Amino acid sequence: MKSVRRIDHVAIVVEDIDRALNFWRDGLGLEVTHVEDVPEQNSVVAFLPAGAAEVELVKPTDEESGVARYLRKRGPGIHHLCFEVDDIQEYLERLRAMGVRLINPEPVIGTGGKLIAFIHPESTHGVLVELYEVTQAEPEIRLARARSLASRALNQGQVMAAGVLGFLRALRSNSSEADQATPPHQPLEES
Amino acid sequence: MKSVRRIDHVAIVVEDIDRALNFWRDGLGLEVTHVEDVPEQNSVVAFLPAGAAEVELVKPTDEESGVARYLRKRGPGIHHLCFEVDDIQEYLERLRAMGVRLINPEPVIGTGGKLIAFIHPESTHGVLVELYEVTQAEPEIRLARARSLASRALNQGQVMAAGVLGFLRALRSNSSEADQATPPHQPLEES
Repeated sequence: MKSVRRIDHVAIVVEDIDRALNFWRDGLGLEVTHVEDVPEQNSVVAFLPAGAAEVELVKPTDEESGVARYLRKRGPGIHHLCFEVDDIQEYLERLRAMGVRLINPEPVIGTGGKLIAFIHPESTHGVLVELYEVTQAEPEIRLARARSLASRALNQGQVMAAGVLGFLRALRSNSSEADQATPPHQPLEES
Repeated sequence: MKSVRRIDHVAIVVEDIDRALNFWRDGLGLEVTHVEDVPEQNSVVAFLPAGAAEVELVKPTDEESGVARYLRKRGPGIHHLCFEVDDIQEYLERLRAMGVRLINPEPVIGTGGKLIAFIHPESTHGVLVELYEVTQAEPEIRLARARSLASRALNQGQVMAAGVLGFLRALRSNSSEADQATPPHQPLEES
Protein backbone atom coordinates (compact mmCIF):
# COMPACT_ATOMS: atom_id res chain seq x y z
CA MET A 1 0.00 0.00 0.00
CA LYS A 2 1.13 3.53 -0.72
CA SER A 3 2.40 5.53 2.25
CA VAL A 4 2.62 9.21 3.09
CA ARG A 5 6.15 10.41 2.30
CA ARG A 6 7.02 12.25 5.49
CA ILE A 7 5.85 14.66 8.15
CA ASP A 8 5.89 18.00 6.36
CA HIS A 9 5.13 20.29 9.28
CA VAL A 10 3.69 20.69 12.74
CA ALA A 11 1.54 23.83 12.98
CA ILE A 12 1.42 25.65 16.32
CA VAL A 13 -1.16 28.38 16.87
CA VAL A 14 0.23 31.29 18.91
CA GLU A 15 -1.02 34.65 20.12
CA ASP A 16 2.12 36.55 19.10
CA ILE A 17 4.78 35.30 16.69
CA ASP A 18 7.54 37.58 17.99
CA ARG A 19 7.03 36.36 21.55
CA ALA A 20 6.79 32.72 20.43
CA LEU A 21 10.16 33.10 18.68
CA ASN A 22 11.74 33.66 22.10
CA PHE A 23 11.41 29.92 22.58
CA TRP A 24 11.16 28.39 19.11
CA ARG A 25 14.00 30.38 17.55
CA ASP A 26 16.14 31.63 20.43
CA GLY A 27 15.61 28.63 22.73
CA LEU A 28 15.71 25.72 20.27
CA GLY A 29 18.00 27.46 17.78
CA LEU A 30 15.64 27.02 14.82
CA GLU A 31 15.92 29.55 12.00
CA VAL A 32 13.00 31.54 10.60
CA THR A 33 13.38 31.12 6.84
CA HIS A 34 10.34 33.15 5.90
CA VAL A 35 7.04 34.57 7.04
CA GLU A 36 3.97 34.32 4.86
CA ASP A 37 0.61 36.03 4.74
CA VAL A 38 -2.18 33.46 4.21
CA PRO A 39 -5.24 35.62 3.54
CA GLU A 40 -7.63 32.71 2.82
CA GLN A 41 -6.85 31.31 6.26
CA ASN A 42 -6.76 34.75 7.93
CA SER A 43 -3.35 34.12 9.38
CA VAL A 44 0.34 34.93 9.22
CA VAL A 45 2.68 31.94 9.32
CA ALA A 46 6.38 31.82 10.29
CA PHE A 47 8.31 28.82 8.91
CA LEU A 48 11.12 27.23 10.95
CA PRO A 49 12.68 24.16 9.28
CA ALA A 50 13.82 21.35 11.63
CA GLY A 51 15.52 18.69 9.54
CA ALA A 52 13.25 17.49 6.73
CA ALA A 53 10.14 18.88 8.45
CA GLU A 54 9.09 22.34 9.63
CA VAL A 55 7.61 24.00 12.66
CA GLU A 56 5.01 26.55 11.56
CA LEU A 57 3.96 29.27 14.00
CA VAL A 58 0.47 30.44 13.02
CA LYS A 59 -1.03 33.70 14.25
CA PRO A 60 -4.67 34.44 13.36
CA THR A 61 -5.27 37.87 11.80
CA ASP A 62 -9.01 38.00 12.47
CA GLU A 63 -11.39 36.89 15.22
CA GLU A 64 -13.65 34.49 13.33
CA SER A 65 -11.43 32.05 11.42
CA GLY A 66 -11.07 28.44 12.52
CA VAL A 67 -7.57 29.12 13.85
CA ALA A 68 -8.79 32.15 15.86
CA ARG A 69 -11.63 30.14 17.39
CA TYR A 70 -9.24 27.30 18.22
CA LEU A 71 -6.92 29.75 19.98
CA ARG A 72 -9.78 31.28 21.99
CA LYS A 73 -11.16 27.89 23.00
CA ARG A 74 -8.00 25.87 23.69
CA GLY A 75 -5.21 28.44 24.03
CA PRO A 76 -1.90 28.28 22.14
CA GLY A 77 -0.58 24.85 21.16
CA ILE A 78 -0.32 22.32 18.35
CA HIS A 79 -3.09 22.94 15.82
CA HIS A 80 -2.43 20.30 13.18
CA LEU A 81 0.02 17.77 11.75
CA CYS A 82 0.76 17.72 8.00
CA PHE A 83 1.99 14.83 5.84
CA GLU A 84 3.26 15.06 2.28
CA VAL A 85 1.62 12.61 -0.13
CA ASP A 86 2.23 11.80 -3.80
CA ASP A 87 -1.36 11.88 -4.96
CA ILE A 88 -3.80 13.69 -2.72
CA GLN A 89 -6.84 12.74 -4.82
CA GLU A 90 -6.08 9.07 -4.48
CA TYR A 91 -5.68 9.44 -0.69
CA LEU A 92 -8.93 11.31 -0.30
CA GLU A 93 -10.79 8.69 -2.32
CA ARG A 94 -9.36 5.84 -0.30
CA LEU A 95 -10.02 7.56 3.02
CA ARG A 96 -13.58 8.42 1.99
CA ALA A 97 -14.17 4.78 1.02
CA MET A 98 -12.95 3.81 4.52
CA GLY A 99 -15.55 6.09 6.09
CA VAL A 100 -13.00 8.71 7.25
CA ARG A 101 -14.55 12.13 7.85
CA LEU A 102 -12.90 14.66 5.49
CA ILE A 103 -13.06 18.39 6.23
CA ASN A 104 -12.03 19.05 2.62
CA PRO A 105 -13.59 16.38 0.37
CA GLU A 106 -11.63 17.98 -2.49
CA PRO A 107 -8.12 19.52 -2.25
CA VAL A 108 -7.85 23.30 -1.65
CA ILE A 109 -4.92 25.74 -1.94
CA GLY A 110 -2.90 26.22 1.27
CA THR A 111 0.27 28.13 2.27
CA GLY A 112 2.70 28.55 -0.59
CA GLY A 113 0.20 27.28 -3.16
CA LYS A 114 0.28 23.72 -1.85
CA LEU A 115 -2.59 21.42 -2.70
CA ILE A 116 -3.99 20.44 0.70
CA ALA A 117 -6.92 18.78 2.44
CA PHE A 118 -7.78 18.43 6.12
CA ILE A 119 -9.06 15.28 7.83
CA HIS A 120 -11.40 15.61 10.82
CA PRO A 121 -9.92 14.73 14.27
CA GLU A 122 -12.95 12.51 14.85
CA SER A 123 -11.48 9.99 12.38
CA THR A 124 -7.83 10.28 13.44
CA HIS A 125 -8.11 9.81 17.22
CA GLY A 126 -8.01 13.49 18.10
CA VAL A 127 -5.49 14.97 15.63
CA LEU A 128 -6.35 17.50 12.93
CA VAL A 129 -4.40 15.99 10.00
CA GLU A 130 -3.47 17.82 6.80
CA LEU A 131 -2.43 16.05 3.61
CA TYR A 132 -0.32 17.99 1.13
CA GLU A 133 0.77 17.43 -2.45
CA VAL A 134 3.39 19.64 -4.03
CA THR A 135 2.23 21.46 -7.19
CA GLN A 136 3.94 23.20 -10.10
CA ALA A 137 2.44 26.51 -8.97
CA GLU A 138 3.82 26.33 -5.42
CA PRO A 139 7.12 28.24 -5.90
CA GLU A 140 5.39 31.09 -7.78
CA ILE A 141 2.59 31.48 -5.27
CA ARG A 142 5.04 31.39 -2.38
CA LEU A 143 7.07 34.15 -3.99
CA ALA A 144 4.02 36.34 -4.63
CA ARG A 145 2.99 35.98 -1.00
CA ALA A 146 6.42 36.84 0.36
CA ARG A 147 6.37 39.90 -1.91
CA SER A 148 2.96 40.95 -0.60
CA LEU A 149 4.14 40.66 2.98
CA ALA A 150 7.41 42.47 2.25
CA SER A 151 5.51 45.44 0.85
CA ARG A 152 3.87 45.87 4.27
CA ALA A 153 7.03 45.23 6.24
CA LEU A 154 8.57 48.64 6.85
CA ASN A 155 8.89 49.51 10.52
CA GLN A 156 6.88 46.54 11.71
CA GLY A 157 9.50 44.82 13.80
CA GLN A 158 11.31 41.55 13.83
CA VAL A 159 8.83 39.16 12.26
CA MET A 160 8.19 41.44 9.35
CA ALA A 161 11.94 41.83 8.93
CA ALA A 162 12.17 38.04 8.76
CA GLY A 163 9.47 38.18 6.10
CA VAL A 164 11.56 40.55 4.02
CA LEU A 165 14.55 38.30 4.48
CA GLY A 166 12.48 35.36 3.28
CA PHE A 167 11.33 37.39 0.31
CA LEU A 168 14.86 38.26 -0.72
CA ARG A 169 15.97 34.67 -0.28
CA ALA A 170 13.01 33.44 -2.31
CA LEU A 171 13.95 35.85 -5.12
CA ARG A 172 17.53 34.65 -5.03
CA SER A 173 16.72 30.94 -4.90
CA ASN A 174 13.51 30.81 -6.89
CA SER A 175 14.76 28.35 -9.47
CA SER A 176 16.49 26.05 -6.99
CA GLU A 177 13.36 26.22 -4.82
CA ALA A 178 11.37 24.92 -7.76
CA ASP A 179 13.71 21.95 -7.94
CA GLN A 180 13.47 21.30 -4.22
CA ALA A 181 9.70 21.41 -4.36
CA THR A 182 9.63 17.99 -6.00
CA PRO A 183 12.05 15.84 -4.01
CA PRO A 184 12.53 12.25 -5.10
CA HIS A 185 10.29 9.75 -3.37
CA GLN A 186 11.91 8.33 -0.26
CA PRO A 187 10.36 5.00 0.67
CA LEU A 188 10.09 4.39 4.40
CA GLU A 189 12.93 2.39 5.84
CA GLU A 190 12.70 0.24 8.87
CA SER A 191 14.57 2.00 11.68
CA MET B 1 23.85 29.32 17.67
CA LYS B 2 23.38 25.57 17.84
CA SER B 3 20.09 24.22 16.52
CA VAL B 4 18.01 21.13 17.21
CA ARG B 5 18.76 18.57 14.48
CA ARG B 6 15.26 17.56 13.47
CA ILE B 7 11.80 16.63 14.61
CA ASP B 8 12.26 13.12 15.99
CA HIS B 9 8.64 12.24 16.66
CA VAL B 10 5.11 13.40 17.30
CA ALA B 11 3.48 11.46 20.16
CA ILE B 12 -0.26 10.87 20.01
CA VAL B 13 -2.07 9.55 23.06
CA VAL B 14 -4.83 7.08 22.17
CA GLU B 15 -7.31 4.89 24.03
CA ASP B 16 -6.65 1.80 21.93
CA ILE B 17 -3.65 1.24 19.65
CA ASP B 18 -5.33 -1.39 17.45
CA ARG B 19 -8.24 0.93 16.73
CA ALA B 20 -5.93 3.91 16.14
CA LEU B 21 -4.02 1.84 13.55
CA ASN B 22 -7.20 1.79 11.44
CA PHE B 23 -6.33 5.36 10.52
CA TRP B 24 -2.61 5.79 11.15
CA ARG B 25 -1.52 2.55 9.47
CA ASP B 26 -4.36 1.53 7.16
CA GLY B 27 -5.48 5.04 6.22
CA LEU B 28 -2.15 6.86 5.86
CA GLY B 29 -0.19 3.78 4.83
CA LEU B 30 2.41 4.14 7.60
CA GLU B 31 4.13 0.97 8.75
CA VAL B 32 4.36 -0.16 12.38
CA THR B 33 8.04 -1.03 12.80
CA HIS B 34 7.79 -2.03 16.43
CA VAL B 35 5.81 -1.76 19.63
CA GLU B 36 7.52 -1.08 22.93
CA ASP B 37 6.62 -1.44 26.56
CA VAL B 38 7.69 1.66 28.54
CA PRO B 39 7.15 0.66 32.16
CA GLU B 40 8.56 3.86 33.68
CA GLN B 41 5.98 5.85 31.72
CA ASN B 42 3.22 3.24 32.26
CA SER B 43 2.50 3.01 28.57
CA VAL B 44 2.83 0.94 25.43
CA VAL B 45 4.10 2.78 22.36
CA ALA B 46 3.71 1.86 18.67
CA PHE B 47 6.31 3.40 16.33
CA LEU B 48 5.34 4.42 12.77
CA PRO B 49 8.19 6.09 10.83
CA ALA B 50 7.17 8.86 8.39
CA GLY B 51 10.27 10.00 6.51
CA ALA B 52 13.00 11.05 8.94
CA ALA B 53 10.53 11.44 11.82
CA GLU B 54 8.06 9.11 13.52
CA VAL B 55 4.50 9.04 14.67
CA GLU B 56 4.26 7.38 18.09
CA LEU B 57 0.92 6.07 19.28
CA VAL B 58 0.95 6.00 23.08
CA LYS B 59 -1.52 4.01 25.15
CA PRO B 60 -1.44 4.38 28.93
CA THR B 61 -1.30 1.11 30.87
CA ASP B 62 -2.44 2.53 34.22
CA GLU B 63 -4.87 5.19 35.43
CA GLU B 64 -2.55 7.56 37.27
CA SER B 65 0.37 8.35 34.97
CA GLY B 66 0.71 11.73 33.30
CA VAL B 67 -0.33 10.28 29.95
CA ALA B 68 -3.43 8.62 31.49
CA ARG B 69 -4.49 11.90 33.16
CA TYR B 70 -3.93 13.78 29.89
CA LEU B 71 -6.14 11.30 28.05
CA ARG B 72 -8.91 11.57 30.68
CA LYS B 73 -8.80 15.36 30.72
CA ARG B 74 -8.33 16.21 27.03
CA GLY B 75 -9.19 13.05 25.13
CA PRO B 76 -7.00 11.45 22.48
CA GLY B 77 -4.70 13.72 20.47
CA ILE B 78 -1.15 15.04 20.16
CA HIS B 79 0.62 14.73 23.49
CA HIS B 80 4.09 16.07 22.74
CA LEU B 81 6.62 17.01 20.07
CA CYS B 82 10.19 15.69 20.27
CA PHE B 83 13.39 17.17 18.80
CA GLU B 84 16.76 15.46 18.53
CA VAL B 85 19.66 17.51 19.89
CA ASP B 86 23.42 16.94 19.96
CA ASP B 87 24.02 17.81 23.59
CA ILE B 88 20.99 17.73 25.85
CA GLN B 89 22.90 19.03 28.88
CA GLU B 90 23.99 22.13 27.01
CA TYR B 91 20.41 22.76 25.86
CA LEU B 92 18.97 22.37 29.34
CA GLU B 93 21.54 24.77 30.76
CA ARG B 94 20.87 27.38 28.12
CA LEU B 95 17.10 27.07 28.45
CA ARG B 96 17.31 27.29 32.25
CA ALA B 97 19.42 30.43 31.93
CA MET B 98 16.70 31.89 29.68
CA GLY B 99 14.09 31.26 32.39
CA VAL B 100 12.42 28.38 30.51
CA ARG B 101 10.43 26.05 32.83
CA LEU B 102 11.92 22.54 32.62
CA ILE B 103 9.89 19.50 33.67
CA ASN B 104 13.13 17.49 33.79
CA PRO B 105 15.96 19.74 34.98
CA GLU B 106 18.27 16.77 34.31
CA PRO B 107 17.95 14.22 31.46
CA VAL B 108 16.07 10.97 32.18
CA ILE B 109 15.82 7.67 30.25
CA GLY B 110 12.94 7.49 27.75
CA THR B 111 11.71 4.97 25.16
CA GLY B 112 14.49 2.87 23.70
CA GLY B 113 17.02 4.13 26.26
CA LYS B 114 17.11 7.64 24.81
CA LEU B 115 18.37 10.45 27.01
CA ILE B 116 15.40 12.82 27.19
CA ALA B 117 14.01 15.86 29.00
CA PHE B 118 10.62 17.55 28.83
CA ILE B 119 10.01 21.30 28.68
CA HIS B 120 6.84 22.73 30.22
CA PRO B 121 4.15 24.00 27.77
CA GLU B 122 4.03 27.22 29.80
CA SER B 123 7.39 28.21 28.27
CA THR B 124 6.78 26.95 24.73
CA HIS B 125 3.41 28.58 23.94
CA GLY B 126 1.29 25.55 24.73
CA VAL B 127 3.36 22.61 23.43
CA LEU B 128 4.84 19.87 25.60
CA VAL B 129 8.33 19.65 24.05
CA GLU B 130 10.74 16.76 24.50
CA LEU B 131 14.47 17.00 23.77
CA TYR B 132 16.33 13.81 22.97
CA GLU B 133 19.97 12.87 22.65
CA VAL B 134 20.98 9.52 21.24
CA THR B 135 23.08 7.37 23.60
CA GLN B 136 25.35 4.35 23.19
CA ALA B 137 22.92 2.28 25.27
CA GLU B 138 19.88 3.03 23.11
CA PRO B 139 20.02 0.03 20.69
CA GLU B 140 20.54 -2.45 23.56
CA ILE B 141 17.75 -1.06 25.70
CA ARG B 142 15.40 -0.96 22.73
CA LEU B 143 16.12 -4.62 22.01
CA ALA B 144 15.56 -5.66 25.63
CA ARG B 145 12.20 -3.89 25.65
CA ALA B 146 11.05 -5.46 22.39
CA ARG B 147 12.05 -8.84 23.85
CA SER B 148 10.07 -8.18 27.03
CA LEU B 149 6.98 -7.26 25.04
CA ALA B 150 7.40 -10.24 22.70
CA SER B 151 7.43 -12.61 25.66
CA ARG B 152 3.92 -11.41 26.55
CA ALA B 153 2.68 -11.40 22.99
CA LEU B 154 1.12 -14.81 22.37
CA ASN B 155 -2.55 -14.62 21.46
CA GLN B 156 -2.86 -10.93 22.23
CA GLY B 157 -3.90 -9.68 18.82
CA GLN B 158 -2.56 -7.42 16.16
CA VAL B 159 -0.51 -4.90 18.12
CA MET B 160 1.26 -7.56 20.07
CA ALA B 161 1.95 -9.36 16.79
CA ALA B 162 3.49 -6.13 15.50
CA GLY B 163 5.59 -6.08 18.67
CA VAL B 164 6.90 -9.56 17.90
CA LEU B 165 7.62 -8.48 14.36
CA GLY B 166 9.54 -5.48 15.69
CA PHE B 167 11.43 -7.77 18.04
CA LEU B 168 12.47 -10.10 15.24
CA ARG B 169 13.49 -7.16 13.06
CA ALA B 170 15.44 -5.65 15.91
CA LEU B 171 17.31 -8.91 16.36
CA ARG B 172 18.06 -9.07 12.66
CA SER B 173 19.15 -5.45 12.28
CA ASN B 174 20.64 -4.79 15.69
CA SER B 175 24.07 -3.79 14.40
CA SER B 176 22.76 -1.62 11.55
CA GLU B 177 20.32 -0.02 14.02
CA ALA B 178 23.27 0.94 16.19
CA ASP B 179 24.78 2.72 13.20
CA GLN B 180 21.56 4.50 12.40
CA ALA B 181 21.25 5.67 15.98
CA THR B 182 24.02 8.20 15.41
CA PRO B 183 23.25 9.85 12.07
CA PRO B 184 25.64 12.52 10.81
CA HIS B 185 24.68 16.06 11.70
CA GLN B 186 22.49 17.62 9.04
CA PRO B 187 22.65 21.41 9.22
CA LEU B 188 19.38 23.16 8.46
CA GLU B 189 19.07 24.33 4.89
CA GLU B 190 16.88 27.13 3.69
CA SER B 191 13.98 25.59 1.78
